[in-house]
Amino acid sequence: MQKLEHIGIAVKSLEVSIPIFENLLNALCYKTEIVETEKVNTAFLRQGDTKIELLESMDEDGVIAKFIASRGEGIHHIAFEVDNIEEEMKRLSEAGFKLLSTSPKEGADNKLICFLHPKTNNGVLIELCQEKR
Amino acid sequence: MQKLEHIGIAVKSLEVSIPIFENLLNALCYKTEIVETEKVNTAFLRQGDTKIELLESMDEDGVIAKFIASRGEGIHHIAFEVDNIEEEMKRLSEAGFKLLSTSPKEGADNKLICFLHPKTNNGVLIELCQEKR
Repeated sequence: MQKLEHIGIAVKSLEVSIPIFENLLNALCYKTEIVETEKVNTAFLRQGDTKIELLESMDEDGVIAKFIASRGEGIHHIAFEVDNIEEEMKRLSEAGFKLLSTSPKEGADNKLICFLHPKTNNGVLIELCQEKR
Repeated sequence: MQKLEHIGIAVKSLEVSIPIFENLLNALCYKTEIVETEKVNTAFLRQGDTKIELLESMDEDGVIAKFIASRGEGIHHIAFEVDNIEEEMKRLSEAGFKLLSTSPKEGADNKLICFLHPKTNNGVLIELCQEKR
């Protein structure tokens, strides 16, 4: 683990939420990006060294739509940057953490990603992310 | 707003959760601290420039106990560091964000703090914090 890379926040509508977070953070959204594999539309803001990633579902059966249906809008996950995602997945799996995929997947923002199941981290959905080289 | 200062995670038991997060983050808990005003016992770990604050209720009627009873363990709030908390409270209040106190309160880790109501930030409980001078 290197550092907290971003916080993912589930929102119903980027159009509504981007101005709210721009206002809150006093910072402009600098990028939007569709992540086809996760069926989400994302928007990024920066605060110091950390990114805030707003997540809007592109599909009513998508993970973000389901999250909002059951828990409402709010923090969906936190993501930590790692140097070598496969090594970190191996370390965490051996330490008893449950991984949600057996190999890294394509994420937003030029990253390889893997999620850890919340049940082995006190209810917190954790993403590991590694910049693609 | 300066940067993300910490992420607060509601846990049932620090004794159980400190080793989980030490293992997850590959980092040692460097401090525990009781915050009497909030009736919580806190534990801190660091990851890069960001702190992870584990929050255990000292009181079954406390805010953390109530949060866990209704939503389970998980991310409770995110905290942003500000230079001047009173100026930032004024700016955000004027921008339509609902503050949970009219003046800064004593927080953990030598901070003055103020929370923003989740209803004006897409369900995210936000803490402003300023190092006490």
